Amino acid sequence: MKKSIAAAIGVLLLGPGLIAVAQTKPEDSIKLRRSAMFLVGWNFGPLGAMAQGKRPYDKEAAVKHATVLAFVSKLPLEGFVPGTETGETKAKPEIFQDMDDFKAKMDKMNQETAKLAQVAQNGDFDALKAQVGETGKACKACHDKYRNK
Amino acid sequence: MKKSIAAAIGVLLLGPGLIAVAQTKPEDSIKLRRSAMFLVGWNFGPLGAMAQGKRPYDKEAAVKHATVLAFVSKLPLEGFVPGTETGETKAKPEIFQDMDDFKAKMDKMNQETAKLAQVAQNGDFDALKAQVGETGKACKACHDKYRNK
Repeated sequence: MKKSIAAAIGVLLLGPGLIAVAQTKPEDSIKLRRSAMFLVGWNFGPLGAMAQGKRPYDKEAAVKHATVLAFVSKLPLEGFVPGTETGETKAKPEIFQDMDDFKAKMDKMNQETAKLAQVAQNGDFDALKAQVGETGKACKACHDKYRNK
Repeated sequence: MKKSIAAAIGVLLLGPGLIAVAQTKPEDSIKLRRSAMFLVGWNFGPLGAMAQGKRPYDKEAAVKHATVLAFVSKLPLEGFVPGTETGETKAKPEIFQDMDDFKAKMDKMNQETAKLAQVAQNGDFDALKAQVGETGKACKACHDKYRNK
């Protein structure tokens, strides 16, 4: 825990009584993005598989994964801060040249995952399938433009 | 996206028309744990720093991090499945020999983070500080017993 805290904060004491704003290491911001995106993939995966008929439809599992997906899909953006243009990442540096477009694409994806979480609750498989498709499109739009292979 | 899906699911087609239950690779379950735990540390870090006076108290940031923490702290458990006793992990294999105790410790931590999210909303710094301490104890109890250095 202590290590995580130190890694995540990197607080700098600048002098007696003077406390700097928390500093985050670029590699930790990148790790945040990668961790959050892994959780996104982990939860979208089973939904995609159900939609494609590669896994039996299971309402309870669909609701669980869609609910977590809607939450964790909001988390990667926090890691796209200045100084993280390069490093252990597939994210293209172009993101930082058009942050408004990138944020709009992330926002679109967040909207689709929120809708997916709602649709999953209804228990209508065809509606779920359609919304998994819309969500996948939102993922793809951003990956095509901003992610290296 | 496709890669994440493939990694997360690893669906096996056993024969014509026959679809296996989704298979997850042990290394991906471990990656899920590590990703979720990174998010736990990422969000607990600033709260710990505020409690220790290493970062100025900021109610909005405290609420945000505590809310995310309460959610993501429920996610690692899903990755502690049979077959993941060894690998790229600091988790001790003893976890799998006393899963009930491990789950109880995780559950205690989840209870403390849920309480922390509530306390953060109140905007009472002393109460936040106390609950950060309780949450930290719950983290430590599990790390001391089940995590390698």
